[in-house]
Amino acid sequence: MTASGGALRALARCDALAELSSLPGGLERVAFSPEHRAANALVGSWMQEAGLAVRQDAAGNVCGRVEGERDGLPALVLGSHLDTVTDAGRFDGMLGVLLAIEVVDRIDAATLPFALEVIGFTDEEGTRFGNALLGSRAFAGRVGADWLATADRSGVTVAQAMSAFGLDPDRLGEARRRPEDLIGYLEAHIEQGPHLLDADRALAAVTTIAGARRFTLQVTGRAGHAGGTPYARRRDALVAAAEIVVAIERIAIETGTIGTVGRIRALPGGVNVVPGVCRFSLDLRAETDDARDAALDRIDAVAHEICQRRGVHWQREERYRADATACDPALVTAIEAGIRATGDQAPMRIWSRAGHDGMAVSDVTGVAMLFLRCGNDGISHHPDETVTEADTAAALDAFTAAVLAVADQHRT
Amino acid sequence: MTASGGALRALARCDALAELSSLPGGLERVAFSPEHRAANALVGSWMQEAGLAVRQDAAGNVCGRVEGERDGLPALVLGSHLDTVTDAGRFDGMLGVLLAIEVVDRIDAATLPFALEVIGFTDEEGTRFGNALLGSRAFAGRVGADWLATADRSGVTVAQAMSAFGLDPDRLGEARRRPEDLIGYLEAHIEQGPHLLDADRALAAVTTIAGARRFTLQVTGRAGHAGGTPYARRRDALVAAAEIVVAIERIAIETGTIGTVGRIRALPGGVNVVPGVCRFSLDLRAETDDARDAALDRIDAVAHEICQRRGVHWQREERYRADATACDPALVTAIEAGIRATGDQAPMRIWSRAGHDGMAVSDVTGVAMLFLRCGNDGISHHPDETVTEADTAAALDAFTAAVLAVADQHRT
Repeated sequence: MTASGGALRALARCDALAELSSLPGGLERVAFSPEHRAANALVGSWMQEAGLAVRQDAAGNVCGRVEGERDGLPALVLGSHLDTVTDAGRFDGMLGVLLAIEVVDRIDAATLPFALEVIGFTDEEGTRFGNALLGSRAFAGRVGADWLATADRSGVTVAQAMSAFGLDPDRLGEARRRPEDLIGYLEAHIEQGPHLLDADRALAAVTTIAGARRFTLQVTGRAGHAGGTPYARRRDALVAAAEIVVAIERIAIETGTIGTVGRIRALPGGVNVVPGVCRFSLDLRAETDDARDAALDRIDAVAHEICQRRGVHWQREERYRADATACDPALVTAIEAGIRATGDQAPMRIWSRAGHDGMAVSDVTGVAMLFLRCGNDGISHHPDETVTEADTAAALDAFTAAVLAVADQHRT
Repeated sequence: MTASGGALRALARCDALAELSSLPGGLERVAFSPEHRAANALVGSWMQEAGLAVRQDAAGNVCGRVEGERDGLPALVLGSHLDTVTDAGRFDGMLGVLLAIEVVDRIDAATLPFALEVIGFTDEEGTRFGNALLGSRAFAGRVGADWLATADRSGVTVAQAMSAFGLDPDRLGEARRRPEDLIGYLEAHIEQGPHLLDADRALAAVTTIAGARRFTLQVTGRAGHAGGTPYARRRDALVAAAEIVVAIERIAIETGTIGTVGRIRALPGGVNVVPGVCRFSLDLRAETDDARDAALDRIDAVAHEICQRRGVHWQREERYRADATACDPALVTAIEAGIRATGDQAPMRIWSRAGHDGMAVSDVTGVAMLFLRCGNDGISHHPDETVTEADTAAALDAFTAAVLAVADQHRT
């Protein structure tokens, strides 16, 4: 298939995958769901067409492999994730997996000094269980028993969901890959932001994946009747939480970090009841871990002041923590060589504000990423997420050339 | 049964009703639920013991009647509601119904110039469908087809819930009572606030039930990836909503009104997604309708300013509106006479900050209310809601004497 044909096919496959959704009129595909099963089957069939031997690993990741110049060589892994957020766009994750399949389609693997593998990770987003990078953490062997006990909103645990999906939670450790079996990990992904758009670039090489910490915050006050509780006696958990939400934005802007509250719930939740409890999420990220943690200290101090003034109680529970991941210098060089192969002689470097599977994979092998420009003001995690055909074709060319550059590094 | 015996029995019955709950470890009983059915059956059995002829009306209200000095006289109706908020106390509503049954037990109805009826209304709180006073509005014949189409959070409409409960939604109009068949309506209810506690009074006569308006407010921004959306490009619906929530409290305090946000939801609701939509409730009430509506104008102006500054869109949809209800002067006089009969020679008058079934009932007959002191700082809509035995006994004496005072008014 021609280069532009491959890009068009990858985009058409994004459309096909977007049909595998639990959300009427929109896209949502979460871990261990019927849609997850269907996506693995469909992507697996495309992997087979490209000549990959396909299996599903013990964590529900779909994996394809083609041998290099001889059987059993360590593998260069290309991949991304196949799960989505709620009401998602159709490129975040999926496009990276589909471009990886196109790369395999275009390269004669038998000429390579390593095997090629393509992986479609599950549950990068953490939509269902609130814990991100589940598939890639299993790949890196960094999943504990606490992970299996995490429950979704219906009370179904990861272990139960895995069993229902046909996986044995007790065998999860088998998804772990050994460093000696791996050359490295390359991931193509949409930028999920406007920086490439602003710089008028199609592609960029990622240098660092920013660390993120995620928390569940809870304000506990006292529920009361909306009519009968005078203001002096109110201990309204929601108004305190609302002050904290506004403060988080202010502190993040002042410190150059990024703080997002994506989820909030007031309890008991009656329209005529003063909320006694308010729970909300915080996702905090920054270019460096120090900057992120300094912002957290300021948020804590302000939340403490707000809650003390209002006579309510404040708790913060860490749900997820990923420190910043530096990409592997040699692999970044290969990505830059790939971008140069498209005619862009001064490849842009960028740090990723978003988390990616590479953060987990870096525990067992070096990682690097190719970013691809988003349209629509860089919008992502939204149905308006978009890429152009031309940029997709350039990304496929660059990603292919990057794999060949890694091969050159391993031959010399 | 002795006066104090009747009060103790009413309190014991509050405990028994609190067992009929859909909330493990707490109390929640919503309209047209299995618990609603069980509560109607249990209260109906107590009504029968007190000599009332019992039926369930076309709206699911449980109704008892005993004839006066001759059959077929217009009725003085005593009642309150049997539904609850989520994680409720056990006295709000229920105690008024049970005291009404004790009044019937203590009075020889055959001596009265009117019939006595006791009613346990359904869905005063609006917990399930978001619309309050459903049972009493049906009693007043003020329920429209739009009411039947209102859905709960699972998408079940009132009409569907009624059918599942064994009621015919097409016959709902049969719950309507004609003014000529009614003498008036008296309701005993806990204060749901600390004003009686502060005034060191057990009882008070209600002069006015404050009007309340309830809204669903929606801020619409634009969802985006938490990492990839710089602040300058964010249209975060939740942070705008949080600013509005804080402003509502400030405006309410400044204007001497009461504004409560009891429910909030951010969509799509991912921990790593900037919320594109935030929906929240507003319950607004004041001593006068003018004060309430002036506060609403200020809230609108501030919300508009916040949303314009943030580049998000703002909508407000009215879900419920009840203007202030003046109690019937003759019935208030009877309530005061009842309080005097307990030895309190200067009955306290109070306006009700909370809405009550009397607001709807006042469309077809005069209403008045007896308030009973709450303990625990006046807390209500909370498991810590409480009353004392002594206050309950005083309330029963006063409520009984008030009925006899109405009888005296009708004999002269």
